[in-house]
Amino acid sequence: MKNGFGNRPRARDLGIVVGVLPPGAHNAITDVPGVRVGHCTLIQGHGNLMPGQGPIRTGVTAILPHPGDLFLEKITGAIVRINGFGEVTNSQQVDEMGVMEGPILLTNTMNVPRVADAVIDWAYEHSSDMSVTTWGISPIVAETSDNYLNDARGRHVRREHVFEAIASARDGIVTEGAVGGGTGMICYEFKGGIGTASRVLAAEFGGYTVGALVQSNFGSRAKLRIDGVPVGRALMDYDERIQRDSQGSVIVVIATDAPMSSRQLKRMGMRVAFGLARTGTQGGNTSGDFAICFSTARNRPHHSTAPTLQLTQVVEDTALINQLFDAVVETTEEAVLNSLFKAETMQGRDHHIIYALPIQETVEIMNRYGHTQVKAPSAESS
Amino acid sequence: MKNGFGNRPRARDLGIVVGVLPPGAHNAITDVPGVRVGHCTLIQGHGNLMPGQGPIRTGVTAILPHPGDLFLEKITGAIVRINGFGEVTNSQQVDEMGVMEGPILLTNTMNVPRVADAVIDWAYEHSSDMSVTTWGISPIVAETSDNYLNDARGRHVRREHVFEAIASARDGIVTEGAVGGGTGMICYEFKGGIGTASRVLAAEFGGYTVGALVQSNFGSRAKLRIDGVPVGRALMDYDERIQRDSQGSVIVVIATDAPMSSRQLKRMGMRVAFGLARTGTQGGNTSGDFAICFSTARNRPHHSTAPTLQLTQVVEDTALINQLFDAVVETTEEAVLNSLFKAETMQGRDHHIIYALPIQETVEIMNRYGHTQVKAPSAESS
Amino acid sequence: MKNGFGNRPRARDLGIVVGVLPPGAHNAITDVPGVRVGHCTLIQGHGNLMPGQGPIRTGVTAILPHPGDLFLEKITGAIVRINGFGEVTNSQQVDEMGVMEGPILLTNTMNVPRVADAVIDWAYEHSSDMSVTTWGISPIVAETSDNYLNDARGRHVRREHVFEAIASARDGIVTEGAVGGGTGMICYEFKGGIGTASRVLAAEFGGYTVGALVQSNFGSRAKLRIDGVPVGRALMDYDERIQRDSQGSVIVVIATDAPMSSRQLKRMGMRVAFGLARTGTQGGNTSGDFAICFSTARNRPHHSTAPTLQLTQVVEDTALINQLFDAVVETTEEAVLNSLFKAETMQGRDHHIIYALPIQETVEIMNRYGHTQVKAPSAESS
Amino acid sequence: MKNGFGNRPRARDLGIVVGVLPPGAHNAITDVPGVRVGHCTLIQGHGNLMPGQGPIRTGVTAILPHPGDLFLEKITGAIVRINGFGEVTNSQQVDEMGVMEGPILLTNTMNVPRVADAVIDWAYEHSSDMSVTTWGISPIVAETSDNYLNDARGRHVRREHVFEAIASARDGIVTEGAVGGGTGMICYEFKGGIGTASRVLAAEFGGYTVGALVQSNFGSRAKLRIDGVPVGRALMDYDERIQRDSQGSVIVVIATDAPMSSRQLKRMGMRVAFGLARTGTQGGNTSGDFAICFSTARNRPHHSTAPTLQLTQVVEDTALINQLFDAVVETTEEAVLNSLFKAETMQGRDHHIIYALPIQETVEIMNRYGHTQVKAPSAESS
Repeated sequence: MKNGFGNRPRARDLGIVVGVLPPGAHNAITDVPGVRVGHCTLIQGHGNLMPGQGPIRTGVTAILPHPGDLFLEKITGAIVRINGFGEVTNSQQVDEMGVMEGPILLTNTMNVPRVADAVIDWAYEHSSDMSVTTWGISPIVAETSDNYLNDARGRHVRREHVFEAIASARDGIVTEGAVGGGTGMICYEFKGGIGTASRVLAAEFGGYTVGALVQSNFGSRAKLRIDGVPVGRALMDYDERIQRDSQGSVIVVIATDAPMSSRQLKRMGMRVAFGLARTGTQGGNTSGDFAICFSTARNRPHHSTAPTLQLTQVVEDTALINQLFDAVVETTEEAVLNSLFKAETMQGRDHHIIYALPIQETVEIMNRYGHTQVKAPSAESS
Repeated sequence: MKNGFGNRPRARDLGIVVGVLPPGAHNAITDVPGVRVGHCTLIQGHGNLMPGQGPIRTGVTAILPHPGDLFLEKITGAIVRINGFGEVTNSQQVDEMGVMEGPILLTNTMNVPRVADAVIDWAYEHSSDMSVTTWGISPIVAETSDNYLNDARGRHVRREHVFEAIASARDGIVTEGAVGGGTGMICYEFKGGIGTASRVLAAEFGGYTVGALVQSNFGSRAKLRIDGVPVGRALMDYDERIQRDSQGSVIVVIATDAPMSSRQLKRMGMRVAFGLARTGTQGGNTSGDFAICFSTARNRPHHSTAPTLQLTQVVEDTALINQLFDAVVETTEEAVLNSLFKAETMQGRDHHIIYALPIQETVEIMNRYGHTQVKAPSAESS
Repeated sequence: MKNGFGNRPRARDLGIVVGVLPPGAHNAITDVPGVRVGHCTLIQGHGNLMPGQGPIRTGVTAILPHPGDLFLEKITGAIVRINGFGEVTNSQQVDEMGVMEGPILLTNTMNVPRVADAVIDWAYEHSSDMSVTTWGISPIVAETSDNYLNDARGRHVRREHVFEAIASARDGIVTEGAVGGGTGMICYEFKGGIGTASRVLAAEFGGYTVGALVQSNFGSRAKLRIDGVPVGRALMDYDERIQRDSQGSVIVVIATDAPMSSRQLKRMGMRVAFGLARTGTQGGNTSGDFAICFSTARNRPHHSTAPTLQLTQVVEDTALINQLFDAVVETTEEAVLNSLFKAETMQGRDHHIIYALPIQETVEIMNRYGHTQVKAPSAESS
Repeated sequence: MKNGFGNRPRARDLGIVVGVLPPGAHNAITDVPGVRVGHCTLIQGHGNLMPGQGPIRTGVTAILPHPGDLFLEKITGAIVRINGFGEVTNSQQVDEMGVMEGPILLTNTMNVPRVADAVIDWAYEHSSDMSVTTWGISPIVAETSDNYLNDARGRHVRREHVFEAIASARDGIVTEGAVGGGTGMICYEFKGGIGTASRVLAAEFGGYTVGALVQSNFGSRAKLRIDGVPVGRALMDYDERIQRDSQGSVIVVIATDAPMSSRQLKRMGMRVAFGLARTGTQGGNTSGDFAICFSTARNRPHHSTAPTLQLTQVVEDTALINQLFDAVVETTEEAVLNSLFKAETMQGRDHHIIYALPIQETVEIMNRYGHTQVKAPSAESS
């Protein structure tokens, strides 16, 4: 059982190329200019669960949509419910007003209130007016459940962890796997967590970038598909797997610099379901599956004196919108795969072990199914 | 029983002034520049119902959003369901794409397919390309049921009637009461039908106009309120009233030249419920209550070569948006009242009689409830 | 300025009788068998705002749907958005699954996360399994903003206050006005807060009870209507009123013992808009207006071994469903009025004063508008 | 170019087995007891398009949910929008009331009004009360566009064709491919049309059946996947394919005898998106993608004297609901494949040719991608 971060390859490192559009520089949501990602990862203790104390396998991930003031310059956004057995705070408000404010936080289920409260703390530190002369921030916090590996009852993500995730947000490479909000997550009965991917449209389509970041915690193994190959079915006897039957959830954050209205972003969000489906899931009953979509091209001021504003949006009868939909499907699929490929085997509460997706075996299965370009990296061992 | 059209006063003629915003020149949906309304009214035969033959008390009303090509220049629109026991054709498409095309037609329930088919005929006459090299029109047809007075089974509104309603569409004064789609309708157990009203915002709020046109066919008499006065309760013994208990429906078309996104128009549409509620209804179980909202300020071309377009919309943190909401509530309420005040007593199938709202009695009730400025016009007799 | 609680009359005590259905024993949401309400009211400090310290004018109200285990026996529920500028936690999950669990909490906006976290604490105290072997509770917390009177930034509602509100929940009379979550709220620019009302259907309609409880914090004074009378307009010069133009929000909880599906409860929730509209509001832009509806007749077990279950629901083509809709409209309207009539004048942060609706003047206005049965109670003075 | 119907194999005949659940006796929607399907196929004329005259390549398909009176015994239903660039008539009413009535008709886009009108004719023939003493039927008509092969402008589906489709409805084997509403449809740039499939749950899960019937008219070839294999990509040079880039639409009808509420059926409908995604599509911009779902287990009478009724529904915290979701995904995927495998090459208006999916080549591609069990039937030639 390896423990080092970052040794494992991403899907594309293995020659697994989902879709046809090219990725951005880092094949990450941060390829959308201005978008930054930060994690705070909490791993502490071993052995039997002591509710409230540990073992701790949890964390929080922050996505910052732009470098400006995230309250005063709101972004056009949409939150789309694919299967609503879960929570994204303030989703009704986003739907009503078409904008989001603040960072987007991903964490475990029971920590949602504490993380939302910490976002308010954070916003107050940046504004002495808030809740005094202007209204307060409406935090966007989404969740999946890590209680198989983590002492979820302990709600260990606190104010300082949220502040750290936000403060550490960077552009460039995004750490994937069992980090941040994804620390204790399980995907297709393998270790899951955070994954990301991006696509860049051709110049003739505006050269726009679409990025996805997932917190994956869903799927029963038998259903896992990698670029269409029934990998899960071939790995049923790989380990003494848990049997989860679609318990869990998945959050997919979609960012783009294409100028889109909230209605258009909702249409993007629906395509997240198509991307998830390509990894094999049927959208399990108790899965809280949401897409959180935003466009960085349409920031809107908190205060406005003008009665009207001009907003750009993509035209929906050109090929461009289909390319954007393609990009959502491709990045969602690849981000889920990256969460699987990057996550290391983890042992958590009550000695529960969730194994990483085995690289070598997966490569062999892909080869067996005609994906002969897929190759294990020379230095890799699962 | 008087039969002449146009003798009866509108609410405002009687001194009944709903709300505080001033109306436009004609206090009609046609005050929104470019909007035109036409009716085709079918009244024929008397006596016992001969299904398929008559008596006929029905018709169709056409609202044309702008003077241009209604297919090639689509308008931003939204269709809002308040109580969905009814049909507005292509409502899902409007919600998905945020635009509407073609004229908006109001008719009786069973005629919806024939009217929709006639709209296709009409569109084909204006386009040899349609359904050949480009896709076809998605007609917007809404309905309420006139089968208490009309031989609904006969589906008497045909191609030529739809063409006539569209061709006769005019700006300026809108004929109200038992005309067009409203011919056989019943409102609060009095004769209802078509009503309209408008409001103009102050110059500081852009000087925008909001217009409403209703086809009223809803409400049980006991609930009828006029500017808050429980008129219905006081008129329970006025005639051998039918007992309808909220059977029926109401369609409200809201037009504005304020630049609004489809999301914002949906918010406008929700305020139609508030306007209806002020006339007393609870939104009856079998009532198909829909708001069809559009902005003439955001026409969008059917074909576009540009990848993006710029659209203006009102800012939602100014007082302007509340004024627009007020205008929706006020025009909806006044349009319902106008449909009641303008409609004449009608006898239809099986000798069914629906009486007009009695003017003199209503004025007296209003006076009794402190609305002392309300006065019957000297020449009026109900 | 009087300070004593409970001296002020309810609407019905003054002869203001909204609608036609009879109220239950206490004219309160607690007339629905099993429903209990508790408050924790926090009033502390005077003078200038010291953010984080006070003055404090806030609180929390708990509605307990039934006397059993609120996690293990879920209730059929629906959360309906009328205007989504606000938050009700876990509303997507309620919509997806059709059930709610736990108590329903009403508080101020910025306290939502802390109250939700406290509900989790409370649930954990009642279950050692939760988040260990079974999933955790999804708290239902709704909010309106009290930051004109209260140090909202202080988020003063803590764990112990939530526990107290839940523990103090009782059937019978519900304290109304500036209590619990309604402590610092403002309605039509008068002091608002908590109000409640109920209706009981005739035996021929199953004898079902419908109860409403509102936390009122909405409306501009000019719009206030009481049973249709334009009371607000007549009171524009009563005090140096604040000018709020529909800022604020309103939460309406609807309870019934009629057996209803979540779809039917959504239809009930839409009628809350009709009830609110009758008090004059247009549904202001920044108002977070939600209906939280539940039926106590359809509890559902958290764990189930049977593959199917039998559920009763009302038939929708009888008069019964319209009676239930009427009851929603009537109770919503009357509950808002009760929140106004019962709330006392309050001075809060920065010496802000919000006056109580003046009883004597209101009675006189009602009389002037023909509501001659309305009378001030002999011992009352506003 | 072969013309005979029925010579081509279904997916399963070739050894292509989608998913893990077993199909019913006919692997068709008719395996749900009581469900019947009928087609009327209109193929007439050749050569250049004469708008209004031909060539004709269109039709209509009728799905009858149960053998009883389809108006007086309504079924629990839900219509789910996946991408709303299309029309399903009366979808708002189904969502509001949770029931559907009458047969479900699939046809081409421009024929929707005429087919809906014909359904009214048909209903009138079965009821002399309708639109006289009771309200009229709300037809359910869905569409996709066949105007590449068909004279869509001619709207050739008339009353007699609808009557024939309904009258010819049978249980047992369903004719697939270019028949009925699917006659002129195109799927992944190959000939598409009608396809069906079913799944039967194990006895421990109630032994329920789920059936799907699709009218497929969507997808760009490059995206086509068959059981995960990128078949489309390998067939890009097979013919002078049209380039459609996701123009078109797909309608999926889901039937089950599992007792489900309309809310649960909506959840089923969302899984149709997952099934479609597995065939490769991203949900194209101009695709009207809808799921029409119903349960035959919960018929509800048009007239009811009882105030309440008892309805059974599946429990959502057992494995059963996930099995039902699986069945939706599997049947949707397989029904799309069957529409492709069964449809013959067709030449239509303006000499347009759409080729059938080549069997031999597809088998070879499947083999190349490790699906070695896939074999062309000995007598087959594409």
